[in-house]
Amino acid sequence: MFSERLEIAAARVAGHLRDVLADYPDQPVVDAMRYAVQGGKRLRAFLVMEGAALHGVAPEQAVQAAAAVEALHAYSLVHDDLPCMDDDDLRRGLPTVHVKWDQATAVLVGDALQTLAFDLLADARTHPDPAVRIALVSSLARASGAAGMVLGQAQDIAAETAGRPLTLKEITALQANKTGALIRWSAEAGAVLGQADTGPLRAYASALGLAFQIADDILDVEGDAEKAGKRLQKDAEAGKATFVSLLGLEAAKVRAQNLAAEAEAALSPYGAAAESLREAARFVISREN
Amino acid sequence: MFSERLEIAAARVAGHLRDVLADYPDQPVVDAMRYAVQGGKRLRAFLVMEGAALHGVAPEQAVQAAAAVEALHAYSLVHDDLPCMDDDDLRRGLPTVHVKWDQATAVLVGDALQTLAFDLLADARTHPDPAVRIALVSSLARASGAAGMVLGQAQDIAAETAGRPLTLKEITALQANKTGALIRWSAEAGAVLGQADTGPLRAYASALGLAFQIADDILDVEGDAEKAGKRLQKDAEAGKATFVSLLGLEAAKVRAQNLAAEAEAALSPYGAAAESLREAARFVISREN
Repeated sequence: MFSERLEIAAARVAGHLRDVLADYPDQPVVDAMRYAVQGGKRLRAFLVMEGAALHGVAPEQAVQAAAAVEALHAYSLVHDDLPCMDDDDLRRGLPTVHVKWDQATAVLVGDALQTLAFDLLADARTHPDPAVRIALVSSLARASGAAGMVLGQAQDIAAETAGRPLTLKEITALQANKTGALIRWSAEAGAVLGQADTGPLRAYASALGLAFQIADDILDVEGDAEKAGKRLQKDAEAGKATFVSLLGLEAAKVRAQNLAAEAEAALSPYGAAAESLREAARFVISREN
Repeated sequence: MFSERLEIAAARVAGHLRDVLADYPDQPVVDAMRYAVQGGKRLRAFLVMEGAALHGVAPEQAVQAAAAVEALHAYSLVHDDLPCMDDDDLRRGLPTVHVKWDQATAVLVGDALQTLAFDLLADARTHPDPAVRIALVSSLARASGAAGMVLGQAQDIAAETAGRPLTLKEITALQANKTGALIRWSAEAGAVLGQADTGPLRAYASALGLAFQIADDILDVEGDAEKAGKRLQKDAEAGKATFVSLLGLEAAKVRAQNLAAEAEAALSPYGAAAESLREAARFVISREN
Protein backbone atom coordinates (compact mmCIF):
# COMPACT_ATOMS: atom_id res chain seq x y z
CA MET A 1 0.00 0.00 0.00
CA PHE A 2 2.75 2.45 0.96
CA SER A 3 5.01 1.65 -1.99
CA GLU A 4 2.04 1.92 -4.33
CA ARG A 5 1.01 5.29 -2.92
CA LEU A 6 4.61 6.50 -2.98
CA GLU A 7 4.77 5.54 -6.65
CA ILE A 8 1.51 7.34 -7.39
CA ALA A 9 2.70 10.49 -5.61
CA ALA A 10 6.05 10.28 -7.41
CA ALA A 11 4.42 9.92 -10.83
CA ARG A 12 1.95 12.68 -10.12
CA VAL A 13 4.54 15.21 -8.98
CA ALA A 14 6.92 14.27 -11.82
CA GLY A 15 4.12 14.84 -14.33
CA HIS A 16 3.22 18.13 -12.72
CA LEU A 17 6.79 19.40 -12.75
CA ARG A 18 7.03 18.33 -16.40
CA ASP A 19 3.85 20.28 -17.23
CA VAL A 20 4.97 23.36 -15.33
CA LEU A 21 8.43 23.40 -16.94
CA ALA A 22 6.91 22.83 -20.39
CA ASP A 23 5.72 26.44 -20.19
CA TYR A 24 9.26 27.74 -19.64
CA PRO A 25 11.49 29.06 -22.46
CA ASP A 26 13.26 26.36 -24.48
CA GLN A 27 16.75 27.03 -23.25
CA PRO A 28 19.62 24.81 -22.03
CA VAL A 29 19.18 26.04 -18.46
CA VAL A 30 15.53 24.94 -18.52
CA ASP A 31 16.51 21.54 -20.00
CA ALA A 32 18.92 21.16 -17.09
CA MET A 33 16.12 22.09 -14.65
CA ARG A 34 13.92 19.38 -16.20
CA TYR A 35 16.80 16.92 -15.78
CA ALA A 36 17.46 17.94 -12.19
CA VAL A 37 13.87 17.40 -10.99
CA GLN A 38 13.73 13.83 -12.35
CA GLY A 39 13.88 10.75 -10.18
CA GLY A 40 14.51 10.44 -6.48
CA LYS A 41 12.37 8.76 -3.85
CA ARG A 42 9.88 11.64 -3.76
CA LEU A 43 9.41 11.09 -0.04
CA ARG A 44 8.70 14.80 0.47
CA ALA A 45 6.05 14.78 -2.28
CA PHE A 46 4.49 11.69 -0.71
CA LEU A 47 4.35 13.37 2.71
CA VAL A 48 2.60 16.40 1.22
CA MET A 49 0.10 14.30 -0.75
CA GLU A 50 -0.71 12.02 2.21
CA GLY A 51 -0.95 14.87 4.70
CA ALA A 52 -3.28 16.65 2.30
CA ALA A 53 -5.44 13.55 1.79
CA LEU A 54 -5.86 13.25 5.58
CA HIS A 55 -7.41 16.73 5.55
CA GLY A 56 -9.62 16.33 2.49
CA VAL A 57 -7.47 18.60 0.34
CA ALA A 58 -7.87 18.08 -3.42
CA PRO A 59 -4.88 16.35 -5.05
CA GLU A 60 -4.77 19.14 -7.69
CA GLN A 61 -3.93 21.56 -4.89
CA ALA A 62 -1.61 19.24 -2.97
CA VAL A 63 0.47 18.46 -6.05
CA GLN A 64 1.41 22.14 -6.31
CA ALA A 65 2.90 22.08 -2.81
CA ALA A 66 4.46 18.67 -3.47
CA ALA A 67 6.08 19.94 -6.67
CA ALA A 68 7.31 23.02 -4.80
CA VAL A 69 9.11 21.05 -2.11
CA GLU A 70 10.57 18.64 -4.66
CA ALA A 71 11.85 21.59 -6.73
CA LEU A 72 13.36 23.08 -3.60
CA HIS A 73 14.91 19.74 -2.62
CA ALA A 74 16.30 19.33 -6.15
CA TYR A 75 17.86 22.81 -5.99
CA SER A 76 19.62 21.89 -2.75
CA LEU A 77 20.98 18.67 -4.29
CA VAL A 78 22.25 20.40 -7.46
CA HIS A 79 24.13 22.99 -5.37
CA ASP A 80 25.26 20.41 -2.80
CA ASP A 81 26.80 18.29 -5.57
CA LEU A 82 28.99 21.17 -6.85
CA PRO A 83 32.78 20.67 -6.70
CA CYS A 84 33.09 23.41 -4.06
CA MET A 85 30.50 21.66 -1.89
CA ASP A 86 30.24 17.85 -1.72
CA ASP A 87 31.78 17.33 -5.17
CA ASP A 88 29.55 14.47 -6.30
CA ASP A 89 29.43 13.30 -9.88
CA LEU A 90 26.56 10.86 -9.45
CA ARG A 91 23.05 11.56 -8.16
CA ARG A 92 20.01 9.30 -8.40
CA GLY A 93 22.17 7.06 -10.60
CA LEU A 94 22.79 9.80 -13.18
CA PRO A 95 25.59 12.31 -13.80
CA THR A 96 25.11 15.42 -11.68
CA VAL A 97 24.13 18.67 -13.42
CA HIS A 98 27.60 20.24 -13.30
CA VAL A 99 29.04 17.04 -14.86
CA LYS A 100 26.42 16.78 -17.61
CA TRP A 101 26.38 20.55 -18.25
CA ASP A 102 28.84 22.75 -16.36
CA GLN A 103 29.20 24.46 -13.00
CA ALA A 104 27.70 27.77 -14.11
CA THR A 105 24.60 25.96 -15.36
CA ALA A 106 24.38 24.02 -12.09
CA VAL A 107 24.48 27.24 -10.06
CA LEU A 108 21.74 28.80 -12.22
CA VAL A 109 19.62 25.62 -12.26
CA GLY A 110 19.65 25.51 -8.47
CA ASP A 111 18.82 29.20 -8.27
CA ALA A 112 15.90 28.85 -10.69
CA LEU A 113 14.54 25.72 -8.99
CA GLN A 114 14.40 27.57 -5.68
CA THR A 115 12.49 30.38 -7.39
CA LEU A 116 10.16 27.83 -8.98
CA ALA A 117 9.28 26.44 -5.55
CA PHE A 118 7.99 29.82 -4.35
CA ASP A 119 6.34 30.50 -7.70
CA LEU A 120 4.35 27.25 -7.41
CA LEU A 121 3.21 27.98 -3.85
CA ALA A 122 2.13 31.52 -4.77
CA ASP A 123 -0.05 30.23 -7.62
CA ALA A 124 -3.81 30.27 -7.08
CA ARG A 125 -3.96 26.58 -8.00
CA THR A 126 -2.31 25.79 -4.64
CA HIS A 127 -5.21 27.18 -2.61
CA PRO A 128 -7.94 29.72 -3.37
CA ASP A 129 -7.18 31.65 -0.17
CA PRO A 130 -4.05 33.84 -0.51
CA ALA A 131 -3.56 33.65 3.27
CA VAL A 132 -2.99 29.90 3.01
CA ARG A 133 -0.54 30.35 0.13
CA ILE A 134 1.35 33.02 2.08
CA ALA A 135 1.54 30.67 5.09
CA LEU A 136 3.13 28.03 2.86
CA VAL A 137 5.57 30.51 1.27
CA SER A 138 6.57 31.86 4.64
CA SER A 139 7.04 28.46 6.28
CA LEU A 140 9.00 27.10 3.30
CA ALA A 141 11.29 30.14 3.44
CA ARG A 142 11.88 29.54 7.15
CA ALA A 143 12.49 25.82 6.63
CA SER A 144 14.94 26.26 3.78
CA GLY A 145 16.88 29.48 4.41
CA ALA A 146 19.65 30.57 6.74
CA ALA A 147 17.64 29.49 9.80
CA GLY A 148 16.81 26.07 8.28
CA MET A 149 18.26 23.88 5.52
CA VAL A 150 21.01 26.25 4.38
CA LEU A 151 22.09 26.76 7.99
CA GLY A 152 22.36 22.97 8.35
CA GLN A 153 24.46 22.74 5.20
CA ALA A 154 26.74 25.52 6.42
CA GLN A 155 27.07 23.80 9.82
CA ASP A 156 27.92 20.57 8.00
CA ILE A 157 30.70 22.28 6.01
CA ALA A 158 31.98 24.09 9.11
CA ALA A 159 32.18 20.76 10.94
CA GLU A 160 34.73 19.50 8.40
CA THR A 161 37.21 22.18 9.34
CA ALA A 162 36.33 22.37 13.03
CA GLY A 163 39.28 20.20 14.07
CA ARG A 164 37.06 17.95 16.20
CA PRO A 165 34.12 15.68 15.41
CA LEU A 166 30.63 16.96 16.28
CA THR A 167 28.90 15.75 19.41
CA LEU A 168 25.62 13.83 19.27
CA LYS A 169 23.77 16.96 20.35
CA GLU A 170 25.42 19.06 17.64
CA ILE A 171 24.81 16.54 14.89
CA THR A 172 21.17 16.17 15.92
CA ALA A 173 20.72 19.95 15.74
CA LEU A 174 22.57 20.09 12.41
CA GLN A 175 20.39 17.39 10.85
CA ALA A 176 17.19 18.92 12.23
CA ASN A 177 18.13 21.93 10.08
CA LYS A 178 19.75 20.23 7.09
CA THR A 179 17.12 17.60 6.29
CA GLY A 180 14.60 17.78 9.13
CA ALA A 181 13.17 21.22 8.39
CA LEU A 182 12.08 20.33 4.85
CA ILE A 183 10.63 16.98 5.92
CA ARG A 184 8.64 18.74 8.63
CA TRP A 185 7.39 21.31 6.14
CA SER A 186 6.33 18.53 3.77
CA ALA A 187 4.39 16.63 6.40
CA GLU A 188 2.72 19.78 7.74
CA ALA A 189 1.78 21.27 4.36
CA GLY A 190 -1.36 19.13 4.07
CA ALA A 191 -2.64 20.38 7.42
CA VAL A 192 -1.86 23.97 6.39
CA LEU A 193 -3.76 23.45 3.12
CA GLY A 194 -6.63 21.94 5.11
CA GLN A 195 -6.45 24.82 7.62
CA ALA A 196 -6.19 22.24 10.40
CA ASP A 197 -3.95 21.69 13.43
CA THR A 198 -0.40 20.91 12.27
CA GLY A 199 0.61 19.45 15.66
CA PRO A 200 0.33 15.69 15.01
CA LEU A 201 2.02 15.84 11.60
CA ARG A 202 4.77 18.03 13.02
CA ALA A 203 5.48 15.51 15.79
CA TYR A 204 5.40 12.69 13.23
CA ALA A 205 7.81 14.48 10.90
CA SER A 206 10.25 15.48 13.63
CA ALA A 207 10.75 11.83 14.57
CA LEU A 208 10.64 10.72 10.93
CA GLY A 209 13.25 13.25 9.84
CA LEU A 210 15.74 12.14 12.46
CA ALA A 211 15.07 8.46 11.74
CA PHE A 212 15.64 9.24 8.05
CA GLN A 213 19.04 10.78 8.72
CA ILE A 214 20.18 8.00 11.05
CA ALA A 215 19.12 5.50 8.37
CA ASP A 216 21.11 7.52 5.84
CA ASP A 217 24.21 7.23 7.99
CA ILE A 218 23.62 3.46 8.36
CA LEU A 219 23.16 3.20 4.59
CA ASP A 220 26.41 5.07 4.05
CA VAL A 221 28.18 2.30 5.98
CA GLU A 222 26.21 -0.80 5.01
CA GLY A 223 24.62 0.15 1.70
CA ASP A 224 25.15 -0.96 -1.89
CA ALA A 225 26.33 1.99 -4.00
CA GLU A 226 24.56 0.64 -7.06
CA LYS A 227 21.19 0.40 -5.32
CA ALA A 228 21.74 3.74 -3.58
CA GLY A 229 22.57 5.44 -6.89
CA LYS A 230 25.30 7.50 -5.24
CA ARG A 231 28.78 7.14 -3.81
CA LEU A 232 28.82 5.66 -0.30
CA GLN A 233 31.17 5.55 2.68
CA LYS A 234 32.01 9.16 2.05
CA ASP A 235 31.53 10.17 5.67
CA ALA A 236 33.92 7.53 7.02
CA GLU A 237 36.48 8.50 4.37
CA ALA A 238 36.15 12.14 5.36
CA GLY A 239 36.43 11.26 9.07
CA LYS A 240 33.07 12.96 9.70
CA ALA A 241 31.04 12.29 12.80
CA THR A 242 27.77 10.51 12.00
CA PHE A 243 25.06 8.89 14.11
CA VAL A 244 26.83 5.58 13.39
CA SER A 245 30.27 6.81 14.43
CA LEU A 246 28.85 8.38 17.58
CA LEU A 247 26.36 5.72 18.67
CA GLY A 248 27.81 2.60 17.06
CA LEU A 249 26.02 0.69 14.31
CA GLU A 250 23.72 -1.42 16.50
CA ALA A 251 22.67 1.44 18.80
CA ALA A 252 22.05 3.63 15.74
CA LYS A 253 19.69 0.97 14.37
CA VAL A 254 17.81 0.76 17.68
CA ARG A 255 17.56 4.56 17.82
CA ALA A 256 16.17 4.67 14.26
CA GLN A 257 13.61 1.99 15.14
CA ASN A 258 12.51 3.85 18.27
CA LEU A 259 12.11 7.06 16.28
CA ALA A 260 10.05 5.28 13.63
CA ALA A 261 7.79 3.93 16.38
CA GLU A 262 7.53 7.43 17.85
CA ALA A 263 6.58 8.79 14.43
CA GLU A 264 3.87 6.14 14.06
CA ALA A 265 2.50 6.90 17.52
CA ALA A 266 2.18 10.61 16.71
CA LEU A 267 -0.38 9.74 14.04
CA SER A 268 -2.90 8.24 16.47
CA PRO A 269 -5.39 11.15 16.06
CA TYR A 270 -5.82 10.10 12.42
CA GLY A 271 -6.55 6.42 13.11
CA ALA A 272 -6.44 4.00 10.18
CA ALA A 273 -6.44 6.82 7.60
CA ALA A 274 -2.76 7.46 8.32
CA GLU A 275 -1.65 3.88 7.70
CA SER A 276 0.50 4.71 4.67
CA LEU A 277 2.31 7.43 6.64
CA ARG A 278 2.98 4.80 9.34
CA GLU A 279 4.35 2.50 6.67
CA ALA A 280 6.52 5.37 5.45
CA ALA A 281 8.14 5.55 8.88
CA ARG A 282 8.97 1.84 8.67
CA PHE A 283 10.20 2.26 5.09
CA VAL A 284 12.50 5.13 5.97
CA ILE A 285 14.56 2.95 8.31
CA SER A 286 14.68 -0.07 5.99
CA ARG A 287 15.31 1.55 2.58
CA GLU A 288 18.27 0.69 0.38
CA ASN A 289 18.59 4.10 -1.28
CA MET B 1 16.83 65.96 -4.39
CA PHE B 2 17.33 62.66 -6.15
CA SER B 3 20.74 61.93 -4.61
CA GLU B 4 19.38 62.83 -1.19
CA ARG B 5 16.37 60.56 -1.57
CA LEU B 6 18.55 57.78 -2.95
CA GLU B 7 20.77 58.09 0.12
CA ILE B 8 17.77 58.01 2.45
CA ALA B 9 16.38 54.91 0.71
CA ALA B 10 19.80 53.25 0.81
CA ALA B 11 20.26 53.94 4.52
CA ARG B 12 16.75 52.82 5.32
CA VAL B 13 17.01 49.51 3.46
CA ALA B 14 20.51 48.84 4.82
CA GLY B 15 19.23 49.38 8.36
CA HIS B 16 16.26 47.14 7.72
CA LEU B 17 18.39 44.32 6.32
CA ARG B 18 20.70 44.71 9.33
CA ASP B 19 17.73 44.45 11.72
CA VAL B 20 16.26 41.45 9.90
CA LEU B 21 19.58 39.57 9.80
CA ALA B 22 20.23 40.38 13.46
CA ASP B 23 17.52 37.83 14.26
CA TYR B 24 19.34 35.07 12.35
CA PRO B 25 21.65 32.53 14.02
CA ASP B 26 25.17 33.79 14.72
CA GLN B 27 26.98 31.68 12.15
CA PRO B 28 29.66 32.39 9.53
CA VAL B 29 27.14 31.95 6.70
CA VAL B 30 24.93 34.65 8.24
CA ASP B 31 27.96 36.96 8.71
CA ALA B 32 28.67 36.48 5.01
CA MET B 33 25.02 37.30 4.20
CA ARG B 34 25.34 40.53 6.22
CA TYR B 35 28.49 41.36 4.27
CA ALA B 36 26.91 40.58 0.91
CA VAL B 37 23.93 42.91 1.38
CA GLN B 38 26.12 45.92 2.21
CA GLY B 39 26.76 48.79 -0.17
CA GLY B 40 25.71 49.20 -3.76
CA LYS B 41 23.75 52.00 -5.34
CA ARG B 42 20.43 50.70 -3.97
CA LEU B 43 18.70 51.83 -7.13
CA ARG B 44 16.16 49.01 -6.81
CA ALA B 45 15.39 49.96 -3.22
CA PHE B 46 14.97 53.59 -4.29
CA LEU B 47 12.55 52.60 -7.06
CA VAL B 48 10.44 50.62 -4.58
CA MET B 49 10.41 53.42 -1.99
CA GLU B 50 9.58 56.14 -4.54
CA GLY B 51 6.92 54.09 -6.29
CA ALA B 52 5.38 53.35 -2.90
CA ALA B 53 5.46 57.03 -1.88
CA LEU B 54 3.60 57.94 -5.09
CA HIS B 55 0.77 55.65 -3.96
CA GLY B 56 0.66 56.69 -0.30
CA VAL B 57 2.14 53.41 0.93
CA ALA B 58 3.75 53.61 4.37
CA PRO B 59 7.58 53.50 4.28
CA GLU B 60 7.49 50.70 6.91
CA GLN B 61 5.74 48.52 4.35
CA ALA B 62 7.75 49.66 1.35
CA VAL B 63 11.05 48.98 3.06
CA GLN B 64 10.13 45.29 3.31
CA ALA B 65 9.74 45.06 -0.46
CA ALA B 66 12.85 47.20 -0.98
CA ALA B 67 14.88 44.93 1.30
CA ALA B 68 13.51 41.89 -0.53
CA VAL B 69 14.63 43.07 -3.96
CA GLU B 70 18.01 44.17 -2.63
CA ALA B 71 18.49 40.73 -1.01
CA LEU B 72 17.55 39.10 -4.28
CA HIS B 73 19.88 41.38 -6.24
CA ALA B 74 22.70 40.65 -3.76
CA TYR B 75 22.14 36.89 -4.17
CA SER B 76 22.48 37.24 -7.95
CA LEU B 77 25.74 39.21 -7.57
CA VAL B 78 27.27 36.71 -5.13
CA HIS B 79 26.54 33.82 -7.49
CA ASP B 80 27.48 35.83 -10.59
CA ASP B 81 30.89 36.61 -9.08
CA LEU B 82 31.74 32.90 -8.55
CA PRO B 83 34.78 31.55 -10.44
CA CYS B 84 32.54 29.32 -12.58
CA MET B 85 30.45 32.35 -13.57
CA ASP B 86 32.01 35.82 -14.06
CA ASP B 87 34.96 35.11 -11.75
CA ASP B 88 35.13 38.51 -10.09
CA ASP B 89 37.19 39.19 -6.99
CA LEU B 90 35.97 42.73 -6.42
CA ARG B 91 32.42 43.96 -5.92
CA ARG B 92 31.30 47.34 -4.65
CA GLY B 93 34.98 48.00 -3.91
CA LEU B 94 35.29 45.01 -1.56
CA PRO B 95 36.49 41.41 -1.95
CA THR B 96 33.70 39.17 -3.24
CA VAL B 97 32.18 36.60 -0.87
CA HIS B 98 34.01 33.61 -2.33
CA VAL B 99 37.31 35.51 -1.96
CA LYS B 100 36.67 36.66 1.60
CA TRP B 101 35.13 33.31 2.66
CA ASP B 102 35.11 30.46 0.15
CA GLN B 103 33.05 29.21 -2.79
CA ALA B 104 30.84 26.90 -0.74
CA THR B 105 29.91 29.81 1.54
CA ALA B 106 29.21 32.00 -1.50
CA VAL B 107 26.85 29.39 -2.96
CA LEU B 108 25.00 29.09 0.36
CA VAL B 109 24.92 32.86 0.95
CA GLY B 110 23.30 33.39 -2.44
CA ASP B 111 20.82 30.61 -1.80
CA ALA B 112 19.86 32.02 1.59
CA LEU B 113 19.57 35.59 0.31
CA GLN B 114 17.12 34.45 -2.33
CA THR B 115 15.08 32.71 0.36
CA LEU B 116 15.24 35.85 2.51
CA ALA B 117 13.70 37.89 -0.33
CA PHE B 118 10.59 35.70 -0.40
CA ASP B 119 10.49 35.50 3.39
CA LEU B 120 10.41 39.30 3.61
CA LEU B 121 7.61 39.65 1.05
CA ALA B 122 5.52 36.97 2.76
CA ASP B 123 5.74 38.78 6.10
CA ALA B 124 2.63 40.62 7.29
CA ARG B 125 4.69 43.81 7.74
CA THR B 126 4.83 44.10 3.92
CA HIS B 127 1.06 44.52 3.57
CA PRO B 128 -1.90 43.53 5.76
CA ASP B 129 -3.66 41.86 2.81
CA PRO B 130 -2.17 38.41 2.00
CA ALA B 131 -3.39 38.79 -1.60
CA VAL B 132 -1.06 41.76 -2.07
CA ARG B 133 1.86 39.86 -0.54
CA ILE B 134 1.16 36.87 -2.80
CA ALA B 135 1.09 39.18 -5.83
CA LEU B 136 4.56 40.45 -4.88
CA VAL B 137 5.92 36.94 -4.24
CA SER B 138 4.54 35.69 -7.52
CA SER B 139 5.80 38.62 -9.59
CA LEU B 140 9.26 38.50 -7.99
CA ALA B 141 9.47 34.79 -8.75
CA ARG B 142 8.56 35.47 -12.39
CA ALA B 143 11.03 38.35 -12.64
CA SER B 144 13.95 36.46 -11.13
CA GLY B 145 13.59 32.81 -12.17
CA ALA B 146 14.13 30.82 -15.34
CA ALA B 147 11.78 33.10 -17.29
CA GLY B 148 13.46 36.26 -15.98
CA MET B 149 16.82 37.17 -14.44
CA VAL B 150 18.27 33.64 -14.36
CA LEU B 151 17.27 33.12 -17.98
CA GLY B 152 19.11 36.33 -18.88
CA GLN B 153 22.21 35.15 -17.04
CA ALA B 154 22.06 31.79 -18.81
CA GLN B 155 21.64 33.54 -22.17
CA ASP B 156 24.62 35.71 -21.33
CA ILE B 157 26.79 32.66 -20.59
CA ALA B 158 25.53 30.85 -23.69
CA ALA B 159 26.46 33.88 -25.82
CA GLU B 160 30.10 33.45 -24.84
CA THR B 161 30.28 30.03 -26.46
CA ALA B 162 27.89 30.73 -29.33
CA GLY B 163 30.69 31.32 -31.83
CA ARG B 164 29.13 34.60 -33.02
CA PRO B 165 28.34 37.88 -31.28
CA LEU B 166 24.70 38.54 -30.35
CA THR B 167 22.58 40.81 -32.50
CA LEU B 168 21.07 44.02 -31.13
CA LYS B 169 17.69 42.30 -30.90
CA GLU B 170 19.16 39.37 -28.97
CA ILE B 171 21.12 41.54 -26.57
CA THR B 172 18.08 43.72 -25.92
CA ALA B 173 16.02 40.62 -25.08
CA LEU B 174 18.83 39.22 -22.94
CA GLN B 175 19.16 42.42 -20.92
CA ALA B 176 15.41 42.78 -20.52
CA ASN B 177 15.63 39.45 -18.66
CA LYS B 178 18.99 39.81 -16.93
CA THR B 179 18.62 43.26 -15.38
CA GLY B 180 15.36 44.64 -16.76
CA ALA B 181 12.97 42.24 -15.05
CA LEU B 182 14.13 43.11 -11.54
CA ILE B 183 14.17 46.86 -12.26
CA ARG B 184 10.60 46.60 -13.57
CA TRP B 185 9.54 44.65 -10.48
CA SER B 186 11.13 47.30 -8.25
CA ALA B 187 9.38 50.19 -9.97
CA GLU B 188 6.01 48.42 -10.03
CA ALA B 189 6.10 47.16 -6.43
CA GLY B 190 4.87 50.48 -5.03
CA ALA B 191 1.81 50.41 -7.30
CA VAL B 192 1.14 46.79 -6.28
CA LEU B 193 1.40 47.75 -2.60
CA GLY B 194 -0.94 50.68 -3.27
CA GLN B 195 -3.29 48.39 -5.25
CA ALA B 196 -3.08 50.84 -8.13
CA ASP B 197 -2.47 50.61 -11.90
CA THR B 198 1.10 49.46 -12.53
CA GLY B 199 1.07 50.65 -16.16
CA PRO B 200 2.92 54.00 -15.91
CA LEU B 201 5.65 52.65 -13.63
CA ARG B 202 6.05 49.59 -15.85
CA ALA B 203 6.58 51.78 -18.92
CA TYR B 204 8.99 53.97 -16.94
CA ALA B 205 10.98 50.98 -15.73
CA SER B 206 11.17 49.27 -19.13
CA ALA B 207 12.86 52.32 -20.62
CA LEU B 208 14.92 52.91 -17.47
CA GLY B 209 16.18 49.31 -17.36
CA LEU B 210 17.43 49.40 -20.92
CA ALA B 211 18.99 52.83 -20.43
CA PHE B 212 20.69 51.46 -17.32
CA GLN B 213 22.22 48.58 -19.24
CA ILE B 214 23.40 50.72 -22.15
CA ALA B 215 24.97 53.08 -19.61
CA ASP B 216 26.64 50.05 -17.99
CA ASP B 217 28.18 49.11 -21.31
CA ILE B 218 29.36 52.71 -21.84
CA LEU B 219 30.81 52.71 -18.32
CA ASP B 220 32.61 49.46 -19.06
CA VAL B 221 34.43 51.25 -21.91
CA GLU B 222 34.83 54.77 -20.53
CA GLY B 223 34.65 54.33 -16.79
CA ASP B 224 37.18 54.59 -14.00
CA ALA B 225 37.62 51.22 -12.27
CA GLU B 226 38.27 52.87 -8.92
CA LYS B 227 35.06 54.89 -8.99
CA ALA B 228 33.10 51.92 -10.37
CA GLY B 229 34.39 49.64 -7.59
CA LYS B 230 34.73 46.75 -10.02
CA ARG B 231 36.91 45.57 -12.87
CA LEU B 232 36.08 47.26 -16.18
CA GLN B 233 36.59 46.60 -19.90
CA LYS B 234 35.79 42.97 -19.28
CA ASP B 235 33.34 42.76 -22.14
CA ALA B 236 35.79 44.08 -24.73
CA GLU B 237 38.47 41.71 -23.41
CA ALA B 238 36.03 38.81 -23.70
CA GLY B 239 35.03 39.88 -27.21
CA LYS B 240 31.38 40.08 -26.07
CA ALA B 241 28.79 42.00 -28.01
CA THR B 242 27.51 45.02 -26.06
CA PHE B 243 25.32 47.97 -26.93
CA VAL B 244 28.54 49.92 -27.48
CA SER B 245 30.11 47.33 -29.79
CA LEU B 246 26.86 47.02 -31.74
CA LEU B 247 25.78 50.67 -31.93
CA GLY B 248 29.09 52.48 -31.52
CA LEU B 249 29.85 54.70 -28.52
CA GLU B 250 28.15 57.88 -29.70
CA ALA B 251 24.97 56.18 -30.93
CA ALA B 252 24.80 54.20 -27.66
CA LYS B 253 24.90 57.47 -25.72
CA VAL B 254 22.12 58.95 -27.84
CA ARG B 255 20.05 55.78 -27.38
CA ALA B 256 20.50 55.93 -23.61
CA GLN B 257 19.47 59.59 -23.58
CA ASN B 258 16.36 58.89 -25.65
CA LEU B 259 15.41 56.04 -23.32
CA ALA B 260 15.87 58.23 -20.25
CA ALA B 261 13.57 60.82 -21.86
CA GLU B 262 11.06 58.08 -22.63
CA ALA B 263 11.21 56.95 -19.00
CA GLU B 264 10.57 60.49 -17.81
CA ALA B 265 7.64 60.92 -20.16
CA ALA B 266 6.00 57.74 -18.86
CA LEU B 267 5.66 59.41 -15.46
CA SER B 268 3.39 62.21 -16.68
CA PRO B 269 0.30 60.82 -14.85
CA TYR B 270 2.09 61.49 -11.56
CA GLY B 271 2.99 65.11 -12.29
CA ALA B 272 5.52 66.82 -10.04
CA ALA B 273 5.33 64.06 -7.41
CA ALA B 274 7.48 61.83 -9.61
CA GLU B 275 10.32 64.33 -9.98
CA SER B 276 12.88 62.24 -8.14
CA LEU B 277 12.08 59.23 -10.37
CA ARG B 278 12.66 61.50 -13.37
CA GLU B 279 15.98 62.55 -11.90
CA ALA B 280 16.78 58.87 -11.44
CA ALA B 281 16.42 58.35 -15.17
CA ARG B 282 18.89 61.15 -15.79
CA PHE B 283 21.22 59.77 -13.12
CA VAL B 284 21.20 56.28 -14.59
CA ILE B 285 22.76 57.48 -17.83
CA SER B 286 25.31 59.78 -16.19
CA ARG B 287 26.54 57.66 -13.26
CA GLU B 288 30.17 56.73 -12.72
CA ASN B 289 29.51 53.41 -10.97
